[in-house]
Amino acid sequence: MAIKLHGSTLSTCTQRVLQVLTELDVPYEFSDVNMALGEHKNPDFIANFQPFGKVPALEDDGLKLFESRAICKYLITKYGKGHQLDSSQIASIADIGIYEQAASVEYSYFEPAISGLGYENIFKKFMGRGDADPAAVLQLRASLAQVLDYYEKVLATRQYLAGNEFSLVDLYHLPWMPFFAKLGLESELTSRPNFEAWWKRASSRPSWQKISQ
Amino acid sequence: MAIKLHGSTLSTCTQRVLQVLTELDVPYEFSDVNMALGEHKNPDFIANFQPFGKVPALEDDGLKLFESRAICKYLITKYGKGHQLDSSQIASIADIGIYEQAASVEYSYFEPAISGLGYENIFKKFMGRGDADPAAVLQLRASLAQVLDYYEKVLATRQYLAGNEFSLVDLYHLPWMPFFAKLGLESELTSRPNFEAWWKRASSRPSWQKISQ
Repeated sequence: MAIKLHGSTLSTCTQRVLQVLTELDVPYEFSDVNMALGEHKNPDFIANFQPFGKVPALEDDGLKLFESRAICKYLITKYGKGHQLDSSQIASIADIGIYEQAASVEYSYFEPAISGLGYENIFKKFMGRGDADPAAVLQLRASLAQVLDYYEKVLATRQYLAGNEFSLVDLYHLPWMPFFAKLGLESELTSRPNFEAWWKRASSRPSWQKISQ
Repeated sequence: MAIKLHGSTLSTCTQRVLQVLTELDVPYEFSDVNMALGEHKNPDFIANFQPFGKVPALEDDGLKLFESRAICKYLITKYGKGHQLDSSQIASIADIGIYEQAASVEYSYFEPAISGLGYENIFKKFMGRGDADPAAVLQLRASLAQVLDYYEKVLATRQYLAGNEFSLVDLYHLPWMPFFAKLGLESELTSRPNFEAWWKRASSRPSWQKISQ
């Protein structure tokens, strides 16, 4: 088998790549990295696959890659020509700008806020680093609300975050969406009808249904 | 004039876009946003140009865009076909993966570390938020060393961070490079000969010479 993905199904970044592999219907071998046992910090794993001790990492015909979004783009370039997720199909230069802006907003604002809340309220205890820092939580809640308010406006003008079709930008968000319930933040969704409707549309995607089982 | 860039020459993100405009030799109008006066937090600026109250923001023939890296990609798509910075020219799919990985490393590891150190040791005082947090500085120093160690290895195999030619990935780093001196971190460069040689190559680029005057 050409593709081997090293990761953990519990890792949001791994889930992102798994969903792309599912979308593209590409066969792959999955190598489980047990994060509870710290296998991602194992010197061999760091030396061979991911120099920063994180997951996922990809092997494909001798090429090794890390960084989930980079892996997703690579997989689509290689195996997804003409697929809906292939952003090289976007014809309008303005739409390319809007797509790149939406991708950057996910990484600059959405993920730092929701992953920060996940760290403070869930992972910190799990990692034996004590309780959540109330000041940090307050700031992260405000950052999350700010980006969701922006999404609420954007989604009044289009069906998905980067345009009227489901794209990699939407997909990048999905692994964090179940954390709204885990963190008791359901009202952040229900108070924003456009964002909630987007989540219903995006989460009905068969690839998401499959990997989030 | 078709292009109007709202930003501050003191902002690293604005510098990134200014260097791309210089590379492409595209005429533009510059609208100075006085950050010391908080003009980037002005409700009109937020409503019209940047919903998160940051710089830069671009206007081009009625299109409005923010997020510096998205703006750079948009400008190259529109005005830089065939230019050395045009990554759509990369022919090998493996090289596209390596390019995307390098771009992601800059945003995931390099910028958070160096900008975090800039915040703790320089901007915090300027913003009236007190002194640097020694624990945070220690952690950021370790993160910076980790990514620079990785760069040192990468740059033993190629001339630039994403391949053998200067690319947008290199350019994204440049506005933070003068902070090594400002933060007293010169030894992080001088102790890594490949990284130091990269900086000499990258900083000799005429566009950088021009915008960093």
